[in-house]
Amino acid sequence: MDVIPEILKNVIEDISSLPGYGEKSAQRFAVNLLKMPRKDAINIIKDLSLMLEKIHPCKECGIFSEEEICPICNSEERDKSIICVVEESFDAFAIEKTGKYNGLYHILGGRLSPLEGITEEDLNISSLLQRVEKLKIKEILLATNPTVEGEATALYIANLLKNKDITISRLAYGLPFGAILENADEFTLTKAIELKVKI
Amino acid sequence: MDVIPEILKNVIEDISSLPGYGEKSAQRFAVNLLKMPRKDAINIIKDLSLMLEKIHPCKECGIFSEEEICPICNSEERDKSIICVVEESFDAFAIEKTGKYNGLYHILGGRLSPLEGITEEDLNISSLLQRVEKLKIKEILLATNPTVEGEATALYIANLLKNKDITISRLAYGLPFGAILENADEFTLTKAIELKVKI
Repeated sequence: MDVIPEILKNVIEDISSLPGYGEKSAQRFAVNLLKMPRKDAINIIKDLSLMLEKIHPCKECGIFSEEEICPICNSEERDKSIICVVEESFDAFAIEKTGKYNGLYHILGGRLSPLEGITEEDLNISSLLQRVEKLKIKEILLATNPTVEGEATALYIANLLKNKDITISRLAYGLPFGAILENADEFTLTKAIELKVKI
Repeated sequence: MDVIPEILKNVIEDISSLPGYGEKSAQRFAVNLLKMPRKDAINIIKDLSLMLEKIHPCKECGIFSEEEICPICNSEERDKSIICVVEESFDAFAIEKTGKYNGLYHILGGRLSPLEGITEEDLNISSLLQRVEKLKIKEILLATNPTVEGEATALYIANLLKNKDITISRLAYGLPFGAILENADEFTLTKAIELKVKI
């Protein structure tokens, strides 16, 4: 007998359409929601609804925000001559946590990935170029992920900006804190040696 | 600056409270919903709401169902002298797909796990014993997962039923279809030899 309720099938189809989910993980997600106290599960759904209603990309930088223009773009205290370019909002949130950066952000919404068919038109690159002109930006800090694709995306953007009078920088490579030296890959270790710092 | 919108923080806290989720996977879940066309994301939330409204455990066997009594318990065509005991609804759904079983089910809602503090009171075991009496069950097919905990749960239930006039069976162990023999663990291979079948 086909005894899986249609409603449950729809949920599994929905969740398995999300990146990183398969049928089994979608089933687990549904089962976990159904097994928790119904009141708590309904609260989770309410929070998700509220998120979809209230959270949108900032019209300037693209960071997820409750306001049309995010608190960073709106702040009087941020340095508006520098933009840090990241792949996703949570990358910017992570940088904010360090307290070491006081400029603006620009969220690309991903990275160039020929394999996944993600090209420059899929990323917020033209809006970056517009902001660079409009805000008379003096420095761009490229903070895409230190992966092959993140690196290619950073180089692509650096290339677009090379004839302008802008300092272009990149987050430093090196050993992550707490790393075990003998396990570090060759590339990371090479960079850590090249960029050695005096103590 | 603490720029993560409160609403987004709540969602991440919600999702990371689900088993198998951490902060990063909860972030990914939220970001994926926020990045898809808003209409599609809202549809997913609607499906989840509908699931929480309509899907409940069957009052008899505990399988997830839209009806108070599930189609299996309600069917005239099922053999009501045998109960297949499984950990979760999706285990029963998987067995139904084979078309090889025509009896009833009983959903335990998990397995005994001293490490996670899951005891017999947390599982639907007393309702199983009641059904065994009420339905005058002749056979119990134990189909908990072939793990240490699933096995212990099966043995625990078998023990509760041992003085009754009931045939108690267990799903066969053996090589899974498509397995590579040299990679099979010793226990599986031992069982496959012990339970060898004539061809």
